[in-house]
Amino acid sequence: MASLAIQTGHPEIHDHERIGHPEKTQWVLNAPEPPSLWQELMDSVRETTLFHARRFPSVKDKGSFSRTVISSLQAIFPIFGWCRNYKAAKFKNDLLAGLTLASLCIPQSIGYATLAKLDPQYGLYTSVIPPLIYAVMGTSRDIAIGPVAVVSLLLSSMIPKLEDPEANPVAYRNLVLTTTFFAGIFQASFGLFRLGFLVDFLSHAAIVGFVAGAAIVIGLQQMKGLLGITHFTNKTDVISVMEAAWRAVHHSWNPHNFILGCSFLTFILITRFVGRKNKKLFWLPAIAPLISVVLSTLLVYLTSADEHGIMIIKHIKKGLNPTSFHQLQFNNPHIGEVAKIGLIVSVVALTEGIAVGRSFASIKGYRINGNQEMVAMGFMNILGSVTSCYVATGSFSRSAVNFSAGCETAMSNIVMAITVIVSLELFTRLLYFTPIAILSAIILSALPGLVDLHEAYNIWKIDKLDFLACIGAFFGVLFASVEIGLLAAVTISFVKIIIISIRPGAEVLGRLPETDIFCDVDQYPMAVKSPQVLIIRVKSGLLCFANANFVKEKIMKWASEEESMGKNTIQAVILDMSNLTNIDVSGIASLEELHKNLASSGKELAITNPNWQVIHKLRVANFVTKIGGRVFLTIGEAEEACLGAKMAAV
Amino acid sequence: MASLAIQTGHPEIHDHERIGHPEKTQWVLNAPEPPSLWQELMDSVRETTLFHARRFPSVKDKGSFSRTVISSLQAIFPIFGWCRNYKAAKFKNDLLAGLTLASLCIPQSIGYATLAKLDPQYGLYTSVIPPLIYAVMGTSRDIAIGPVAVVSLLLSSMIPKLEDPEANPVAYRNLVLTTTFFAGIFQASFGLFRLGFLVDFLSHAAIVGFVAGAAIVIGLQQMKGLLGITHFTNKTDVISVMEAAWRAVHHSWNPHNFILGCSFLTFILITRFVGRKNKKLFWLPAIAPLISVVLSTLLVYLTSADEHGIMIIKHIKKGLNPTSFHQLQFNNPHIGEVAKIGLIVSVVALTEGIAVGRSFASIKGYRINGNQEMVAMGFMNILGSVTSCYVATGSFSRSAVNFSAGCETAMSNIVMAITVIVSLELFTRLLYFTPIAILSAIILSALPGLVDLHEAYNIWKIDKLDFLACIGAFFGVLFASVEIGLLAAVTISFVKIIIISIRPGAEVLGRLPETDIFCDVDQYPMAVKSPQVLIIRVKSGLLCFANANFVKEKIMKWASEEESMGKNTIQAVILDMSNLTNIDVSGIASLEELHKNLASSGKELAITNPNWQVIHKLRVANFVTKIGGRVFLTIGEAEEACLGAKMAAV
Repeated sequence: MASLAIQTGHPEIHDHERIGHPEKTQWVLNAPEPPSLWQELMDSVRETTLFHARRFPSVKDKGSFSRTVISSLQAIFPIFGWCRNYKAAKFKNDLLAGLTLASLCIPQSIGYATLAKLDPQYGLYTSVIPPLIYAVMGTSRDIAIGPVAVVSLLLSSMIPKLEDPEANPVAYRNLVLTTTFFAGIFQASFGLFRLGFLVDFLSHAAIVGFVAGAAIVIGLQQMKGLLGITHFTNKTDVISVMEAAWRAVHHSWNPHNFILGCSFLTFILITRFVGRKNKKLFWLPAIAPLISVVLSTLLVYLTSADEHGIMIIKHIKKGLNPTSFHQLQFNNPHIGEVAKIGLIVSVVALTEGIAVGRSFASIKGYRINGNQEMVAMGFMNILGSVTSCYVATGSFSRSAVNFSAGCETAMSNIVMAITVIVSLELFTRLLYFTPIAILSAIILSALPGLVDLHEAYNIWKIDKLDFLACIGAFFGVLFASVEIGLLAAVTISFVKIIIISIRPGAEVLGRLPETDIFCDVDQYPMAVKSPQVLIIRVKSGLLCFANANFVKEKIMKWASEEESMGKNTIQAVILDMSNLTNIDVSGIASLEELHKNLASSGKELAITNPNWQVIHKLRVANFVTKIGGRVFLTIGEAEEACLGAKMAAV
Repeated sequence: MASLAIQTGHPEIHDHERIGHPEKTQWVLNAPEPPSLWQELMDSVRETTLFHARRFPSVKDKGSFSRTVISSLQAIFPIFGWCRNYKAAKFKNDLLAGLTLASLCIPQSIGYATLAKLDPQYGLYTSVIPPLIYAVMGTSRDIAIGPVAVVSLLLSSMIPKLEDPEANPVAYRNLVLTTTFFAGIFQASFGLFRLGFLVDFLSHAAIVGFVAGAAIVIGLQQMKGLLGITHFTNKTDVISVMEAAWRAVHHSWNPHNFILGCSFLTFILITRFVGRKNKKLFWLPAIAPLISVVLSTLLVYLTSADEHGIMIIKHIKKGLNPTSFHQLQFNNPHIGEVAKIGLIVSVVALTEGIAVGRSFASIKGYRINGNQEMVAMGFMNILGSVTSCYVATGSFSRSAVNFSAGCETAMSNIVMAITVIVSLELFTRLLYFTPIAILSAIILSALPGLVDLHEAYNIWKIDKLDFLACIGAFFGVLFASVEIGLLAAVTISFVKIIIISIRPGAEVLGRLPETDIFCDVDQYPMAVKSPQVLIIRVKSGLLCFANANFVKEKIMKWASEEESMGKNTIQAVILDMSNLTNIDVSGIASLEELHKNLASSGKELAITNPNWQVIHKLRVANFVTKIGGRVFLTIGEAEEACLGAKMAAV
């Protein structure tokens, strides 16, 4: 009786089953030991170490010391790589792109600084030092560096909890600079220690939702400037902001601000529409904000509209970035909180920056180096924090302008920075009469690009759970706060991973006609189930405590159902393990129970194609011996062996 | 040039590649749509509904109404199934087992009630009603129901935070009864709504660590009784308890208690040793506790030792369980907390009870019904809570005694309950002089079985990360608190799942000699890599935001390394997807980037054997068209097609 042989669990007894393919089974069973957890850890540490990671291109030919130095420098400062072949023709393109970029960047920077509750000049400062440093250290050719909307919103929603920007503007600004310093340190460390994967922890779907929510929140924040309200709520959720705006509309607001803002918003949107219709006019939407600033400033100056309630920027400090080293607040009692905000901001800024860099690199067909990008952004923020800049990163809208303007290298960032320097030295006084409503209009005009309905629909089509992460982040930002939105995004993303990984499922396999290939009978309706052998594959990469028992019960149910339906008796169950990348102690225990349960009704259990870690653990846990060595490389062999053994036994 | 063809991404162009196996590729591409998230949800809801779940065995033959009723009754009350064939021979075995069980259960119940900071009779009450109800509704034949150590510890560590058991014993007891009620409700609901998988959320490794830690904590709690201390700490962590004991030893303790307790502990341990050596004397360790109680009580009574500092039980209320319906505290201000404790206790109790039931069922070769077990345990606790019982579940040590005593059915639980009833009616006054140190000795003697060093070593051998969950739970219980230990166990288990699921990795495949099988070249050193095609398999069940980019970078690195090593040029990359059970939007985006990057260096990307969900998503996301329809069922076909296409192009 075969069932007796099963219970003894002695491999020799089953030698006759493996006649014809003992060699392949031996291949499975005698695989070398997989790397242990310790070895894997050490390997990844080794890969992580700085020098190994750098991979200086020509370290191998030790002949020339100077060449080694040059290539090391090229790895750390990619500018040395491209500037040697830099031609005048390229510079012409970069100059044009840089100037276009500057015309968009100056009004946007001032607007984003206002959004971050800083004085306008800080936006301009941030468009000087960070782009220059990025141009030297960065690997993307198309990215445009400077202040961005989402990061400004994050800062202005988190730091006011520590220091009131209206009561204590200097203390608030110092905290922002300190946060920038921490963000830079975190970013540089991520790059140096190759922790780039941390940036991947915000899933694409979550980012789409988060950015859309943030865009709406930013838009609502612009009500302050657009309605000419002096006191506005510090909260960022939709309900508080709507309430505050509603209250302001009933008390103190100035319709002139609103009319002025809306007219120029319409102008900017029309130029964008024109630019989209006619690709050659790409520069029109890019310079429209600057035109609006100039026109509206002139208008206010000529009509003295500021005396009739139009709110204006007034003073912008003239001159280049002042040093701010002594304004970093390392002894602040909130230093822990500041570091935490720095961490959050660093991840969000990197996520945006690297996403921008990657997408344009993939269009042009070159590759950016993720770790080097993080180092570059880290250093630009560290150096920025001591030169009165707040957190900068790659801006999607300005990078798109840079790309359409035909930039060739990071030189366009240098051109932009120099233009901003010139403006800081010469033109700040001209901005005295610029209406705040125009800044709001410029920020508002940048927002529609952040709400990507098409992508959201795409996510919905492809993956419903991803869409859940997307709207979770969206509503989190909208109705709770920016941090809660981020937290919701990360949490939903990881819960999704858990659900998918442990979702208990199994599929019955059948043989595809005229082949030796076994496939899911639901996916391939032409596959034919074997009448005497139940072939099952676990539908999960992991057989673990959370799903192993369920899978076991399902297999037992199938085995008994097939029998009770009066068909041919199932003589054996073959468990195809090719899916499984890992198994844990509970998983092995469930397999043992499955084996016992099957054995008690006279059925055999065989396993096929276990992965490296899995077969190792099964061997260590003695499971291979317990099932009488019935481990096979392919399902075909296992089926043959099971049927052959039954024949011999009958 | 083939690279041109790649970039057009039009499937028709590649028709020549599929000559010879167009059919199989069509099988892959034209698979029916997989069930949507909605369908899957509905399916599981349908399976979850009570009536479908019950699967009344004979609903199909509609002839006899009475038979349907009987089989429904049998499903809800399995006792109707087995009692009709119940024979005198079976009863003889059950009677013997039940009596043996009662002799162990009476002293243990009193001890565990003391551990739960309740009056001794509540332990006895808990050994009456729950076993009777379980006998009617449960599906295990070997389990012994009653109070257990871990649950008693949980109650006495969590409820004193709401009500002081020494200052307000009645209020404390009422909260314990209310907790029992909630625990019962939760357990029954888990069973009715088929949420059995919740019990699986405590992994085997975490349970081993948790129980071992709890055993040590329980052992330390026994210092109170063993040293004869009156006031002891309410905390459960090692450090607080040691401190309290140390302080007590220096002030007020009575060595007589210690000597008495230790002598009988030694006696019980020796009988256990004897029982283990000689399997026929299994009853000796089972009745040793009762013998100890009788002997020590006599000793104290005869020597009037209670007047010399030996602490005794004194009064145990005589008579059967009083009703406690009006003691349930639904209007208590702490009701939310109580419900939370009820949830925790219900899961821990179910985990222990079902683990006990499963392990003995698997030894005897029958199966228990997990959901019916939960319903049974839920009802026994609900009814227990209104008859002065606290949370009961299956005890491992007593079930083992039941099993060795040769029990046949749940009848042994009925015998035990009747014996306890008789004792409650007749013998409670005899326990007046029983020393408390003996109760401590009995509890202590049950603990070594809970610390399973052998299993811990086994876990360490098989899975290092599982071992981490094990010691995490162990130290959490030991040094923080019972709840923190549980939380640590669950958290580590789930973090482990995330780490394993997203651990980014990929392996290079090679062809096994003389076969069409492709395997990991590290696992199967005899596998031969193809010189012109790089075949890669993702080492994870999930290609998602957290690992997709890393995998992409790794593949690009391999592709360029192989080239730079001066070997034959890699002409194509084949990505074997048989491992992948799912993919998300970020995963697809990474694949698209991979395709673009490869295409820009003139390489093709082909995918093989995608699973159902994966091919569906790739089709919806238009990825199949983008890679020019290069989807194959087997690696062999893909390799042939890639090489063939190159030949044609050259």
